[in-house]
Amino acid sequence: MNSMIVLKTLGMLLLCEAATMLPSVIVAAINGEHAVFAFLGSMAIAAAIGLALFPIRVKDKIIRYKEGFAIVTFGWLMVSIIGALPFLFTGALPSFVDAFFETVSGFTTTGATVINNVEVLPRSLLFWRSFTHWLGGMGILVLALALAPALGVGTFQILKSESPGPISIKLTPRVNNTAKILYITYTVITLAEVLLLVLGGMPLFDSLVHTFGTLGTGGFSIRNASIGAYNNVYFEVIITIFMVASGVNFSLYYIAFKNKSAREFLRDPEFKTYLYIIAAAIIMITLNLKGKVFDGLLESLRHASFQVASIITTTGFATTNYDSWPDFSRAVLFVLMFIGACAGSTGGSVKVIRIHLLFKYMKREVNRLIHPRSVTAVKIGDFPVQEEVLSGVMAFTMFYMVIFIAASLLLAVQGHDLVSSASAVAATLGNVGPGFGMVGPATTYSSLSDFSKLLLSFCMILGRLEIYTVIALLSPRFWKR
Amino acid sequence: MNSMIVLKTLGMLLLCEAATMLPSVIVAAINGEHAVFAFLGSMAIAAAIGLALFPIRVKDKIIRYKEGFAIVTFGWLMVSIIGALPFLFTGALPSFVDAFFETVSGFTTTGATVINNVEVLPRSLLFWRSFTHWLGGMGILVLALALAPALGVGTFQILKSESPGPISIKLTPRVNNTAKILYITYTVITLAEVLLLVLGGMPLFDSLVHTFGTLGTGGFSIRNASIGAYNNVYFEVIITIFMVASGVNFSLYYIAFKNKSAREFLRDPEFKTYLYIIAAAIIMITLNLKGKVFDGLLESLRHASFQVASIITTTGFATTNYDSWPDFSRAVLFVLMFIGACAGSTGGSVKVIRIHLLFKYMKREVNRLIHPRSVTAVKIGDFPVQEEVLSGVMAFTMFYMVIFIAASLLLAVQGHDLVSSASAVAATLGNVGPGFGMVGPATTYSSLSDFSKLLLSFCMILGRLEIYTVIALLSPRFWKR
Repeated sequence: MNSMIVLKTLGMLLLCEAATMLPSVIVAAINGEHAVFAFLGSMAIAAAIGLALFPIRVKDKIIRYKEGFAIVTFGWLMVSIIGALPFLFTGALPSFVDAFFETVSGFTTTGATVINNVEVLPRSLLFWRSFTHWLGGMGILVLALALAPALGVGTFQILKSESPGPISIKLTPRVNNTAKILYITYTVITLAEVLLLVLGGMPLFDSLVHTFGTLGTGGFSIRNASIGAYNNVYFEVIITIFMVASGVNFSLYYIAFKNKSAREFLRDPEFKTYLYIIAAAIIMITLNLKGKVFDGLLESLRHASFQVASIITTTGFATTNYDSWPDFSRAVLFVLMFIGACAGSTGGSVKVIRIHLLFKYMKREVNRLIHPRSVTAVKIGDFPVQEEVLSGVMAFTMFYMVIFIAASLLLAVQGHDLVSSASAVAATLGNVGPGFGMVGPATTYSSLSDFSKLLLSFCMILGRLEIYTVIALLSPRFWKR
Repeated sequence: MNSMIVLKTLGMLLLCEAATMLPSVIVAAINGEHAVFAFLGSMAIAAAIGLALFPIRVKDKIIRYKEGFAIVTFGWLMVSIIGALPFLFTGALPSFVDAFFETVSGFTTTGATVINNVEVLPRSLLFWRSFTHWLGGMGILVLALALAPALGVGTFQILKSESPGPISIKLTPRVNNTAKILYITYTVITLAEVLLLVLGGMPLFDSLVHTFGTLGTGGFSIRNASIGAYNNVYFEVIITIFMVASGVNFSLYYIAFKNKSAREFLRDPEFKTYLYIIAAAIIMITLNLKGKVFDGLLESLRHASFQVASIITTTGFATTNYDSWPDFSRAVLFVLMFIGACAGSTGGSVKVIRIHLLFKYMKREVNRLIHPRSVTAVKIGDFPVQEEVLSGVMAFTMFYMVIFIAASLLLAVQGHDLVSSASAVAATLGNVGPGFGMVGPATTYSSLSDFSKLLLSFCMILGRLEIYTVIALLSPRFWKR
């Protein structure tokens, strides 16, 4: 392990974080909020540590597997610890565990909150809280590309831009250029949503904050009743569309733009499966809600669409307390928490491409049973998938389930009911945000113990970093020379 | 598909079933029960159909993959339909769906019941009900061996007796001999349990019936409160030991007997994992129960041990209403439902060997991430496992989860709560019997709709036949020439 380069990179990351607090300082200044000092103090601490680490001299400048994993995991952790300071310094969250949970939830674009009444917080703090979603979303997009060659498994391998394999979508030969293209796409979509919301009559500040939550598929709101507080169909339609759009592999936007053809989307098997799942879930929930929760079909469709888009993209906005919906609708939403958005998007959870591959894998096993001699490769579209990619996908899913079960048991042992325990883990590991029961959309995570909050923070980071990155760090073999 | 040999074998199976009703006729005669006519009528129908099918001339006497799958699936189904007749004819269960559910539950050694008050039933019918467990258990033992070469996946392949592979345990070169050895072992253990229960003071009839439920890992009782009705620690200890023993790979008994060494058990990695899981679950539940449900440590240990053994072996006997235990204990039991007993036992569910392999597989993937060039074979003990066996195990687990989710949603859409829906499916697919909530140990499956009962009957057969057998039959490719 080349610790020097890890520390230097972490230092650089902290300097960036200090800079990203600047917009919150401006918001505080404009609104004449006392919080301005909290932000200046946090910036100073971030900058001081960053400046201490940055000048480290590094002989070997190559970032290998190990260094990559360490930078990503410790980076996400450190940025969350420093990012928690404004919550502490303003007194909004006097407990460090609470402030840490909230910030991890922000940077991992989860959106699980411990704040019972967000409407009394300073606007600058609300801005920072939502801005962490937007930053985290951008971070995950570039991570998927930058670390792709290192992480030879799962989504990352599927996205791998240097690989000559047929699965990868080659954007441009160099990671830096690719990252730049992703940033531009991300920013353009952000501006489009803000504009559409403002045109529809949402105040600029509200539009900005909810757009951060949408693009990062995070879900923090500045209203206690989330998007439901506006009771505005136009806002809901716009946000639904942008949530779905944020769950799409961002490479597709660039390819579609370059080839000037929207057909590129429909040529992507993952995108199609993503839309099929969304459509099926909306139909099932709409039919289940009609007559039971809402009188009309349109009203049922309205809330079903918003909630399906919100959960499958792992955003977590709500227009209504879906925890009071019939058990079937809740069960469908619960299953969506384990599917998640497309690989290469800002969404979390298992990801549609893996679910797609799992079903293909299962189908092949049945065929192998009937015709033992005909073993064919599993394909995505027309391209065969390497066996080791499949192994990675299967093992990832197993890890996901095992972590889900173990963490749920650790919550249940504290006396929480099964549905709350299981959904709290599903909603944090999948970076969704709200769950059911004690952690439903009408409540918060504030009533959980500090142990639970730290455990769930760990789940958020595990989920966000696609498990392997963190598991590798925890493995004794990793630290052997 | 050689349909002729399938029909002929099914005819043979029906003749056997007619013969297995004879003990119930004797029980009915001894007790002077009217049910004697119900049994004679059912025997006549079974024999008539059997005699009609048996003389079919078969040119090609070889049973291949396809014929094997068809015989097993249709066989289990047909035997359940005919076995349901005594319930119908005695009027104990006037609805055919109920009678079918109960008999499928018997032959698949599940133990899920729709009878709210078993204590008023004729003794001959109670005998038949439990005898189906014993017969089903024997059936599954021989099936695992006879169909092993055909089912090149999962447990069956692991047991595969003709394979030159290192995983299989060669008992004797010919399946027939192996089956004979298994039958003898099964009968000896049965007699031992009956003897020990009778010596402890349990009436002979009760001892027989509960032994059938234990050996088959079924769980039907003749008391509404199951084993709890006796409130007798001796009975509980004996039944706990025999439940655990029935969840062990039966080949191990023969090998240990032949080599005159009990160490053979400890040399089996699956057996060791099985014991570790049981021990861990007992400790966790005991500590959770103490002070909350029972005052003393011993009382907590008593009920925890019985219930853990009952659920992991997929038997389903109860000494107390464990559904009123704290959520953590219930969650642990719920997880055990997905583990199940050892391969080659009469227990159901995923099986310990698959769980064992899943964890080894996950471990290998992490190592591959850290050292991409060092890919080692997954081993059971000292023997490397073939990659296609691993693929089978992974796909099996995925199928299991997908069926679990789909069936749970189909129950939930009828308005049942999440815990009842999910546990009803887990308890039938895993051949456990009682679940939680609406289908807990203190209630029955009687309140469910006919649709739900048929769906859960299907789950019981799917689980018992290790999914693939049935899935293959449902695949369009299966029926192509």
